[in-house]
Amino acid sequence: MNEFRRLGILGGMGPLATLDLQQKILAATPANRDQDHVPVVVWNVPQIADRQHALAGLGPSPLPQLLDAIKGLNQAGVSHIALPCNTAHYWYDELAAASAAPLLHIADITTQAMTEESLRPSTIGLIATQGTLTANWYQQRFSQAGIGVVIPTPDELAQWFVPGCYAVKRGDIRGGGLLLDLLADRLASRGAQKLVLACTEVPPALEAINSKYLPDSIDPTTALAKTCVKMWQQSQQSATGLMY
Amino acid sequence: MNEFRRLGILGGMGPLATLDLQQKILAATPANRDQDHVPVVVWNVPQIADRQHALAGLGPSPLPQLLDAIKGLNQAGVSHIALPCNTAHYWYDELAAASAAPLLHIADITTQAMTEESLRPSTIGLIATQGTLTANWYQQRFSQAGIGVVIPTPDELAQWFVPGCYAVKRGDIRGGGLLLDLLADRLASRGAQKLVLACTEVPPALEAINSKYLPDSIDPTTALAKTCVKMWQQSQQSATGLMY
Repeated sequence: MNEFRRLGILGGMGPLATLDLQQKILAATPANRDQDHVPVVVWNVPQIADRQHALAGLGPSPLPQLLDAIKGLNQAGVSHIALPCNTAHYWYDELAAASAAPLLHIADITTQAMTEESLRPSTIGLIATQGTLTANWYQQRFSQAGIGVVIPTPDELAQWFVPGCYAVKRGDIRGGGLLLDLLADRLASRGAQKLVLACTEVPPALEAINSKYLPDSIDPTTALAKTCVKMWQQSQQSATGLMY
Repeated sequence: MNEFRRLGILGGMGPLATLDLQQKILAATPANRDQDHVPVVVWNVPQIADRQHALAGLGPSPLPQLLDAIKGLNQAGVSHIALPCNTAHYWYDELAAASAAPLLHIADITTQAMTEESLRPSTIGLIATQGTLTANWYQQRFSQAGIGVVIPTPDELAQWFVPGCYAVKRGDIRGGGLLLDLLADRLASRGAQKLVLACTEVPPALEAINSKYLPDSIDPTTALAKTCVKMWQQSQQSATGLMY
Protein backbone atom coordinates (compact mmCIF):
# COMPACT_ATOMS: atom_id res chain seq x y z
CA MET A 1 0.00 0.00 0.00
CA ASN A 2 1.05 3.62 -0.54
CA GLU A 3 3.14 5.39 2.05
CA PHE A 4 0.82 7.26 4.42
CA ARG A 5 1.53 10.97 3.98
CA ARG A 6 -1.79 12.74 4.56
CA LEU A 7 -5.30 11.47 5.27
CA GLY A 8 -8.30 12.65 3.29
CA ILE A 9 -11.71 12.42 4.91
CA LEU A 10 -14.62 12.28 2.48
CA GLY A 11 -17.22 13.57 4.91
CA GLY A 12 -20.46 15.50 5.02
CA MET A 13 -22.61 12.38 5.49
CA GLY A 14 -23.44 13.74 7.97
CA PRO A 15 -21.37 16.65 9.22
CA LEU A 16 -21.48 15.40 12.84
CA ALA A 17 -20.19 11.95 11.87
CA THR A 18 -17.32 13.69 10.07
CA LEU A 19 -16.39 15.53 13.28
CA ASP A 20 -16.75 12.32 15.24
CA LEU A 21 -14.09 10.61 13.12
CA GLN A 22 -11.73 13.58 13.54
CA GLN A 23 -12.23 13.52 17.31
CA LYS A 24 -11.59 9.81 17.48
CA ILE A 25 -8.40 10.23 15.44
CA LEU A 26 -7.22 12.93 17.87
CA ALA A 27 -8.12 10.80 20.90
CA ALA A 28 -6.25 7.78 19.48
CA THR A 29 -3.05 9.73 18.77
CA PRO A 30 -0.22 9.69 21.30
CA ALA A 31 1.21 13.19 20.78
CA ASN A 32 3.59 15.52 22.53
CA ARG A 33 2.92 18.53 20.33
CA ASP A 34 0.86 19.76 17.36
CA GLN A 35 3.28 18.33 14.82
CA ASP A 36 2.81 14.74 16.10
CA HIS A 37 -0.86 14.67 15.04
CA VAL A 38 -2.12 13.00 11.86
CA PRO A 39 -2.23 15.45 8.92
CA VAL A 40 -5.79 15.52 7.64
CA VAL A 41 -7.72 17.28 4.89
CA VAL A 42 -11.47 17.08 5.47
CA TRP A 43 -14.08 17.48 2.75
CA ASN A 44 -17.12 18.23 4.91
CA VAL A 45 -19.45 19.45 2.18
CA PRO A 46 -22.89 18.05 3.03
CA GLN A 47 -24.62 19.30 -0.14
CA ILE A 48 -24.78 15.72 -1.38
CA ALA A 49 -27.92 13.93 -2.55
CA ASP A 50 -29.41 11.81 0.25
CA ARG A 51 -27.90 8.29 0.16
CA GLN A 52 -30.82 6.50 1.78
CA HIS A 53 -33.30 8.14 -0.61
CA ALA A 54 -31.11 7.32 -3.62
CA LEU A 55 -30.83 3.63 -2.69
CA ALA A 56 -34.58 3.45 -2.09
CA GLY A 57 -35.14 4.80 -5.60
CA LEU A 58 -36.63 8.01 -4.23
CA GLY A 59 -33.99 10.51 -5.30
CA PRO A 60 -30.91 11.24 -7.43
CA SER A 61 -27.58 9.49 -6.98
CA PRO A 62 -24.93 11.18 -4.82
CA LEU A 63 -22.19 9.78 -7.06
CA PRO A 64 -21.39 13.03 -8.97
CA GLN A 65 -20.86 14.94 -5.70
CA LEU A 66 -18.84 12.07 -4.21
CA LEU A 67 -16.60 12.06 -7.28
CA ASP A 68 -16.09 15.84 -6.90
CA ALA A 69 -14.90 15.22 -3.35
CA ILE A 70 -12.56 12.43 -4.46
CA LYS A 71 -11.07 14.79 -7.03
CA GLY A 72 -10.67 17.61 -4.51
CA LEU A 73 -9.02 15.38 -1.92
CA ASN A 74 -6.59 13.95 -4.46
CA GLN A 75 -5.69 17.48 -5.60
CA ALA A 76 -5.02 18.29 -1.92
CA GLY A 77 -2.27 15.67 -1.90
CA VAL A 78 -3.86 13.03 0.32
CA SER A 79 -2.30 9.55 0.27
CA HIS A 80 -5.34 7.66 1.67
CA ILE A 81 -9.06 8.38 1.97
CA ALA A 82 -11.46 7.47 4.77
CA LEU A 83 -15.21 7.57 4.16
CA PRO A 84 -17.07 8.00 7.47
CA CYS A 85 -20.43 6.95 6.03
CA ASN A 86 -21.22 3.24 5.78
CA THR A 87 -24.05 3.67 3.29
CA ALA A 88 -21.84 5.65 0.89
CA HIS A 89 -19.68 2.54 0.54
CA TYR A 90 -22.36 1.44 -1.94
CA TRP A 91 -20.36 3.57 -4.42
CA TYR A 92 -16.98 2.31 -3.15
CA ASP A 93 -15.90 0.67 -6.42
CA GLU A 94 -16.62 3.74 -8.56
CA LEU A 95 -14.90 6.03 -6.05
CA ALA A 96 -11.85 3.77 -5.67
CA ALA A 97 -11.51 3.56 -9.45
CA ALA A 98 -11.52 7.37 -9.70
CA SER A 99 -8.98 7.93 -6.89
CA ALA A 100 -5.20 7.78 -6.99
CA ALA A 101 -5.25 7.59 -3.18
CA PRO A 102 -6.58 4.22 -1.97
CA LEU A 103 -9.92 4.22 -0.11
CA LEU A 104 -10.04 2.43 3.23
CA HIS A 105 -13.14 0.16 3.42
CA ILE A 106 -14.90 0.63 6.74
CA ALA A 107 -16.32 -2.93 6.82
CA ASP A 108 -12.89 -4.49 6.24
CA ILE A 109 -11.41 -2.43 9.04
CA THR A 110 -14.28 -3.17 11.43
CA THR A 111 -14.11 -6.90 10.77
CA GLN A 112 -10.37 -6.82 11.37
CA ALA A 113 -10.91 -4.99 14.69
CA MET A 114 -13.58 -7.52 15.68
CA THR A 115 -11.39 -10.53 14.97
CA GLU A 116 -8.62 -9.01 17.12
CA GLU A 117 -10.90 -8.77 20.18
CA SER A 118 -10.04 -11.20 22.98
CA LEU A 119 -13.68 -12.20 23.54
CA ARG A 120 -15.32 -12.66 20.17
CA PRO A 121 -19.12 -12.70 20.28
CA SER A 122 -20.97 -15.61 18.70
CA THR A 123 -23.80 -13.30 17.60
CA ILE A 124 -23.66 -9.60 16.81
CA GLY A 125 -26.51 -7.15 16.21
CA LEU A 126 -26.00 -4.93 13.18
CA ILE A 127 -27.38 -1.37 13.32
CA ALA A 128 -27.26 0.02 9.79
CA THR A 129 -29.26 1.66 7.02
CA GLN A 130 -31.40 -0.44 4.69
CA GLY A 131 -28.78 0.28 2.01
CA THR A 132 -25.94 -1.09 4.11
CA LEU A 133 -28.00 -4.12 5.16
CA THR A 134 -28.95 -4.88 1.55
CA ALA A 135 -25.35 -4.50 0.39
CA ASN A 136 -24.48 -7.33 2.77
CA TRP A 137 -20.89 -6.13 3.46
CA TYR A 138 -20.94 -6.74 7.18
CA GLN A 139 -23.05 -9.93 7.22
CA GLN A 140 -20.78 -11.56 4.62
CA ARG A 141 -17.55 -10.68 6.45
CA PHE A 142 -18.87 -11.70 9.86
CA SER A 143 -20.23 -14.96 8.48
CA GLN A 144 -16.78 -15.75 7.04
CA ALA A 145 -15.36 -15.10 10.52
CA GLY A 146 -17.90 -17.54 12.02
CA ILE A 147 -20.00 -14.85 13.72
CA GLY A 148 -23.82 -14.87 13.53
CA VAL A 149 -25.70 -11.65 12.73
CA VAL A 150 -29.07 -10.29 13.90
CA ILE A 151 -30.42 -7.38 11.84
CA PRO A 152 -33.32 -4.94 12.33
CA THR A 153 -36.65 -5.70 10.66
CA PRO A 154 -38.07 -3.17 8.16
CA ASP A 155 -40.58 -2.11 10.85
CA GLU A 156 -37.81 -1.54 13.39
CA LEU A 157 -35.85 0.51 10.87
CA ALA A 158 -38.87 2.66 10.12
CA GLN A 159 -39.86 3.10 13.76
CA TRP A 160 -36.48 3.81 15.39
CA PHE A 161 -33.52 3.81 13.04
CA VAL A 162 -34.59 6.24 10.32
CA PRO A 163 -36.08 8.89 12.66
CA GLY A 164 -33.08 8.43 15.00
CA CYS A 165 -30.56 9.13 12.24
CA TYR A 166 -32.43 12.07 10.82
CA ALA A 167 -32.70 13.55 14.33
CA VAL A 168 -28.89 13.50 14.56
CA LYS A 169 -28.64 15.13 11.13
CA ARG A 170 -30.78 18.05 12.26
CA GLY A 171 -28.71 18.45 15.44
CA ASP A 172 -30.97 16.62 17.95
CA ILE A 173 -28.25 14.21 19.01
CA ARG A 174 -29.79 13.10 22.31
CA GLY A 175 -33.22 12.63 20.75
CA GLY A 176 -31.61 10.47 18.09
CA GLY A 177 -29.76 8.50 20.77
CA LEU A 178 -32.97 7.66 22.63
CA LEU A 179 -34.58 6.25 19.47
CA LEU A 180 -31.49 4.26 18.50
CA ASP A 181 -31.27 2.85 22.01
CA LEU A 182 -34.75 1.36 21.58
CA LEU A 183 -33.56 -0.38 18.43
CA ALA A 184 -30.55 -1.70 20.37
CA ASP A 185 -33.01 -3.16 22.94
CA ARG A 186 -34.74 -5.13 20.18
CA LEU A 187 -31.50 -6.59 18.79
CA ALA A 188 -30.29 -7.52 22.28
CA SER A 189 -33.61 -9.24 22.96
CA ARG A 190 -33.04 -11.37 19.85
CA GLY A 191 -29.67 -12.62 21.09
CA ALA A 192 -27.09 -10.02 20.03
CA GLN A 193 -24.17 -10.14 22.46
CA LYS A 194 -22.44 -7.16 20.91
CA LEU A 195 -23.67 -4.42 18.59
CA VAL A 196 -21.91 -3.14 15.49
CA LEU A 197 -22.86 0.52 15.07
CA ALA A 198 -22.56 0.45 11.29
CA CYS A 199 -24.00 3.88 10.58
CA THR A 200 -21.69 6.75 11.54
CA GLU A 201 -24.53 8.79 13.07
CA VAL A 202 -25.13 6.09 15.68
CA PRO A 203 -21.96 6.21 17.86
CA PRO A 204 -22.15 9.94 18.72
CA ALA A 205 -25.90 9.58 19.37
CA LEU A 206 -25.47 6.65 21.78
CA GLU A 207 -22.50 8.47 23.39
CA ALA A 208 -24.67 11.57 23.92
CA ILE A 209 -27.12 9.54 26.05
CA ASN A 210 -24.36 7.37 27.58
CA SER A 211 -26.20 4.26 26.37
CA LYS A 212 -25.79 1.07 28.38
CA TYR A 213 -24.94 -0.69 25.10
CA LEU A 214 -21.73 1.29 24.49
CA PRO A 215 -19.39 -1.06 26.43
CA ASP A 216 -20.70 -3.94 24.31
CA SER A 217 -20.55 -2.11 21.01
CA ILE A 218 -18.09 -2.11 18.18
CA ASP A 219 -17.77 1.33 16.65
CA PRO A 220 -16.58 1.30 13.02
CA THR A 221 -15.66 5.00 13.31
CA THR A 222 -13.27 4.22 16.18
CA ALA A 223 -11.84 1.25 14.26
CA LEU A 224 -11.28 3.52 11.23
CA ALA A 225 -9.66 6.20 13.42
CA LYS A 226 -7.31 3.73 15.10
CA THR A 227 -6.27 2.26 11.76
CA CYS A 228 -5.47 5.72 10.38
CA VAL A 229 -3.40 6.59 13.45
CA LYS A 230 -1.54 3.28 13.26
CA MET A 231 -0.72 3.86 9.58
CA TRP A 232 0.48 7.38 10.35
CA GLN A 233 2.70 6.19 13.20
CA GLN A 234 4.20 3.43 11.08
CA SER A 235 5.01 5.92 8.34
CA GLN A 236 6.67 8.22 10.88
CA GLN A 237 8.76 5.40 12.33
CA SER A 238 9.95 4.46 8.87
CA ALA A 239 10.84 8.08 8.04
CA THR A 240 14.57 8.68 8.40
CA GLY A 241 14.37 12.14 9.92
CA LEU A 242 11.96 14.57 11.49
CA MET A 243 11.11 17.73 9.64
CA TYR A 244 9.92 19.89 12.54
CA MET B 1 -17.53 40.76 -0.24
CA ASN B 2 -17.60 37.54 -2.26
CA GLU B 3 -20.67 35.36 -2.25
CA PHE B 4 -20.26 32.72 0.45
CA ARG B 5 -20.14 29.34 -1.29
CA ARG B 6 -17.82 27.15 0.79
CA LEU B 7 -15.74 27.83 3.90
CA GLY B 8 -12.06 26.93 4.10
CA ILE B 9 -10.55 26.37 7.52
CA LEU B 10 -6.79 26.86 7.69
CA GLY B 11 -6.27 24.71 10.77
CA GLY B 12 -3.70 22.51 12.42
CA MET B 13 -2.66 25.17 14.97
CA GLY B 14 -3.49 23.12 16.88
CA PRO B 15 -5.59 20.20 15.72
CA LEU B 16 -7.96 20.43 18.71
CA ALA B 17 -8.66 24.13 18.10
CA THR B 18 -9.51 23.22 14.49
CA LEU B 19 -12.08 20.70 15.70
CA ASP B 20 -13.41 23.21 18.20
CA LEU B 21 -14.22 25.69 15.41
CA GLN B 22 -15.98 22.97 13.40
CA GLN B 23 -18.03 21.97 16.44
CA LYS B 24 -19.01 25.54 17.15
CA ILE B 25 -20.08 26.00 13.51
CA LEU B 26 -22.26 22.89 13.77
CA ALA B 27 -23.74 24.03 17.08
CA ALA B 28 -24.55 27.49 15.67
CA THR B 29 -26.33 26.13 12.57
CA PRO B 30 -30.10 25.76 12.58
CA ALA B 31 -30.48 22.69 10.36
CA ASN B 32 -33.19 20.23 9.46
CA ARG B 33 -30.95 17.86 7.51
CA ASP B 34 -27.35 17.28 6.38
CA GLN B 35 -27.71 19.56 3.38
CA ASP B 36 -28.54 22.61 5.55
CA HIS B 37 -25.09 22.60 7.17
CA VAL B 38 -22.25 24.93 6.16
CA PRO B 39 -20.03 23.36 3.46
CA VAL B 40 -16.49 23.26 4.83
CA VAL B 41 -13.08 22.13 3.62
CA VAL B 42 -10.64 21.78 6.51
CA TRP B 43 -6.86 21.87 6.15
CA ASN B 44 -5.88 20.26 9.46
CA VAL B 45 -2.23 19.60 8.67
CA PRO B 46 -0.30 20.35 11.88
CA GLN B 47 3.17 19.83 10.38
CA ILE B 48 3.74 23.59 10.56
CA ALA B 49 6.69 25.28 12.22
CA ASP B 50 5.81 26.42 15.76
CA ARG B 51 4.38 29.94 15.66
CA GLN B 52 5.37 30.95 19.17
CA HIS B 53 8.94 29.78 18.62
CA ALA B 54 9.15 31.59 15.27
CA LEU B 55 7.98 34.90 16.74
CA ALA B 56 10.41 34.53 19.64
CA GLY B 57 13.23 34.13 17.11
CA LEU B 58 13.78 30.52 18.20
CA GLY B 59 12.71 28.66 15.06
CA PRO B 60 11.84 28.87 11.36
CA SER B 61 8.84 30.76 9.99
CA PRO B 62 5.62 28.82 9.39
CA LEU B 63 4.85 31.05 6.39
CA PRO B 64 5.79 28.52 3.65
CA GLN B 65 3.46 25.87 5.13
CA LEU B 66 0.70 28.42 5.67
CA LEU B 67 0.98 29.47 2.03
CA ASP B 68 0.71 25.80 0.96
CA ALA B 69 -2.53 25.56 2.91
CA ILE B 70 -3.87 28.78 1.35
CA LYS B 71 -3.11 27.35 -2.10
CA GLY B 72 -4.76 24.02 -1.29
CA LEU B 73 -7.90 25.63 0.10
CA ASN B 74 -8.25 27.92 -2.91
CA GLN B 75 -7.84 24.93 -5.24
CA ALA B 76 -10.64 23.24 -3.26
CA GLY B 77 -13.00 26.03 -4.32
CA VAL B 78 -13.48 27.79 -0.99
CA SER B 79 -14.97 31.30 -1.11
CA HIS B 80 -13.77 32.43 2.36
CA ILE B 81 -11.07 31.29 4.78
CA ALA B 82 -11.15 31.19 8.58
CA LEU B 83 -7.91 30.87 10.54
CA PRO B 84 -8.58 29.38 13.99
CA CYS B 85 -5.22 30.45 15.41
CA ASN B 86 -4.83 33.98 16.73
CA THR B 87 -1.02 33.95 16.65
CA ALA B 88 -0.96 32.91 12.98
CA HIS B 89 -2.68 36.21 12.16
CA TYR B 90 0.84 37.66 12.40
CA TRP B 91 1.15 36.48 8.76
CA TYR B 92 -2.38 37.69 7.84
CA ASP B 93 -1.24 40.23 5.23
CA GLU B 94 0.97 37.79 3.32
CA LEU B 95 -1.72 35.10 3.42
CA ALA B 96 -4.49 37.46 2.34
CA ALA B 97 -2.33 38.71 -0.54
CA ALA B 98 -1.79 35.11 -1.73
CA SER B 99 -5.47 34.10 -1.50
CA ALA B 100 -8.29 34.65 -3.97
CA ALA B 101 -10.72 33.79 -1.15
CA PRO B 102 -10.82 36.57 1.47
CA LEU B 103 -9.49 35.75 4.96
CA LEU B 104 -11.74 36.57 7.91
CA HIS B 105 -9.74 38.37 10.64
CA ILE B 106 -10.50 36.87 14.04
CA ALA B 107 -9.83 40.10 15.96
CA ASP B 108 -12.21 42.11 13.75
CA ILE B 109 -14.93 39.53 14.25
CA THR B 110 -14.38 39.31 18.01
CA THR B 111 -14.45 43.09 18.43
CA GLN B 112 -17.66 43.22 16.42
CA ALA B 113 -19.21 40.52 18.66
CA MET B 114 -18.07 42.41 21.76
CA THR B 115 -19.59 45.72 20.67
CA GLU B 116 -22.91 43.96 20.00
CA GLU B 117 -23.13 42.66 23.60
CA SER B 118 -25.83 44.31 25.69
CA LEU B 119 -23.55 44.76 28.72
CA ARG B 120 -20.17 45.94 27.48
CA PRO B 121 -17.37 45.59 30.03
CA SER B 122 -15.22 48.63 30.86
CA THR B 123 -12.15 46.42 31.28
CA ILE B 124 -11.36 43.09 29.65
CA GLY B 125 -8.59 40.61 30.39
CA LEU B 126 -6.80 39.36 27.30
CA ILE B 127 -5.48 35.77 27.33
CA ALA B 128 -3.16 35.38 24.36
CA THR B 129 0.32 34.36 23.23
CA GLN B 130 3.22 36.79 23.50
CA GLY B 131 3.04 37.06 19.70
CA THR B 132 -0.62 38.10 19.73
CA LEU B 133 -0.03 40.53 22.61
CA THR B 134 2.94 42.12 20.85
CA ALA B 135 1.01 42.43 17.60
CA ASN B 136 -1.49 44.59 19.50
CA TRP B 137 -4.52 43.62 17.35
CA TYR B 138 -6.94 43.21 20.21
CA GLN B 139 -5.68 46.04 22.45
CA GLN B 140 -5.88 48.52 19.58
CA ARG B 141 -9.42 47.51 18.56
CA PHE B 142 -10.75 47.44 22.14
CA SER B 143 -9.14 50.78 22.88
CA GLN B 144 -10.91 52.26 19.83
CA ALA B 145 -14.16 50.86 21.25
CA GLY B 146 -13.44 52.56 24.61
CA ILE B 147 -12.68 49.33 26.47
CA GLY B 148 -9.67 49.01 28.81
CA VAL B 149 -7.41 45.95 28.58
CA VAL B 150 -5.48 43.99 31.23
CA ILE B 151 -2.82 41.62 29.86
CA PRO B 152 -0.68 38.86 31.42
CA THR B 153 2.83 39.71 32.58
CA PRO B 154 5.79 37.83 31.02
CA ASP B 155 6.05 35.82 34.27
CA GLU B 156 2.37 34.87 34.16
CA LEU B 157 2.72 33.78 30.54
CA ALA B 158 5.71 31.60 31.38
CA GLN B 159 4.15 30.12 34.50
CA TRP B 160 0.62 29.35 33.30
CA PHE B 161 -0.12 30.28 29.71
CA VAL B 162 2.69 28.56 27.80
CA PRO B 163 2.57 25.25 29.73
CA GLY B 164 -1.25 25.35 29.59
CA CYS B 165 -1.32 25.69 25.80
CA TYR B 166 1.32 23.05 25.19
CA ALA B 167 -0.58 20.67 27.50
CA VAL B 168 -3.63 21.04 25.21
CA LYS B 169 -1.45 20.41 22.17
CA ARG B 170 -0.26 17.08 23.57
CA GLY B 171 -3.85 16.08 24.41
CA ASP B 172 -3.94 16.92 28.15
CA ILE B 173 -6.92 19.24 27.80
CA ARG B 174 -7.98 19.27 31.45
CA GLY B 175 -4.42 19.78 32.67
CA GLY B 176 -4.15 22.73 30.31
CA GLY B 177 -7.47 24.09 31.56
CA LEU B 178 -6.34 24.07 35.19
CA LEU B 179 -3.23 26.10 34.35
CA LEU B 180 -5.13 28.59 32.19
CA ASP B 181 -7.72 29.02 34.93
CA LEU B 182 -4.93 30.21 37.27
CA LEU B 183 -3.99 32.85 34.71
CA ALA B 184 -7.66 33.88 34.51
CA ASP B 185 -7.60 34.36 38.32
CA ARG B 186 -4.71 36.82 37.99
CA LEU B 187 -6.41 38.90 35.30
CA ALA B 188 -9.67 38.97 37.27
CA SER B 189 -7.76 40.12 40.37
CA ARG B 190 -6.41 43.04 38.32
CA GLY B 191 -9.88 44.26 37.39
CA ALA B 192 -10.88 42.31 34.26
CA GLN B 193 -14.69 42.07 34.15
CA LYS B 194 -14.68 39.79 31.13
CA LEU B 195 -11.99 37.68 29.53
CA VAL B 196 -11.20 37.45 25.84
CA LEU B 197 -9.84 33.94 25.16
CA ALA B 198 -7.63 35.05 22.27
CA CYS B 199 -5.75 31.81 21.79
CA THR B 200 -7.83 29.04 20.22
CA GLU B 201 -6.47 26.38 22.60
CA VAL B 202 -7.96 28.23 25.57
CA PRO B 203 -11.75 27.85 25.06
CA PRO B 204 -11.79 24.01 24.81
CA ALA B 205 -9.39 23.82 27.78
CA LEU B 206 -11.58 26.02 30.01
CA GLU B 207 -14.67 24.14 28.76
CA ALA B 208 -13.06 20.81 29.73
CA ILE B 209 -12.78 21.94 33.37
CA ASN B 210 -16.07 23.89 33.26
CA SER B 211 -14.21 27.01 34.41
CA LYS B 212 -16.15 29.56 36.44
CA TYR B 213 -14.85 32.22 34.01
CA LEU B 214 -16.69 30.81 30.98
CA PRO B 215 -19.94 32.75 31.48
CA ASP B 216 -17.88 35.97 31.58
CA SER B 217 -15.68 35.11 28.64
CA ILE B 218 -15.72 36.13 25.03
CA ASP B 219 -14.64 33.27 22.80
CA PRO B 220 -13.21 34.39 19.43
CA THR B 221 -13.73 30.85 18.05
CA THR B 222 -17.46 31.07 18.80
CA ALA B 223 -17.60 34.57 17.28
CA LEU B 224 -15.87 33.27 14.14
CA ALA B 225 -18.22 30.27 13.96
CA LYS B 226 -21.33 32.44 14.30
CA THR B 227 -20.11 34.84 11.64
CA CYS B 228 -19.49 31.96 9.20
CA VAL B 229 -22.95 30.51 9.84
CA LYS B 230 -24.56 33.93 9.38
CA MET B 231 -22.75 34.44 6.05
CA TRP B 232 -23.81 30.97 4.89
CA GLN B 233 -27.44 31.56 5.85
CA GLN B 234 -27.49 34.94 4.09
CA SER B 235 -26.09 33.38 0.93
CA GLN B 236 -28.75 30.65 1.07
CA GLN B 237 -31.54 33.17 1.52
CA SER B 238 -30.33 35.12 -1.49
CA ALA B 239 -30.12 31.97 -3.63
CA THR B 240 -33.12 31.63 -5.89
CA GLY B 241 -33.57 27.88 -5.60
CA LEU B 242 -32.53 24.88 -3.58
CA MET B 243 -30.37 22.26 -5.24
CA TYR B 244 -31.11 19.29 -2.96
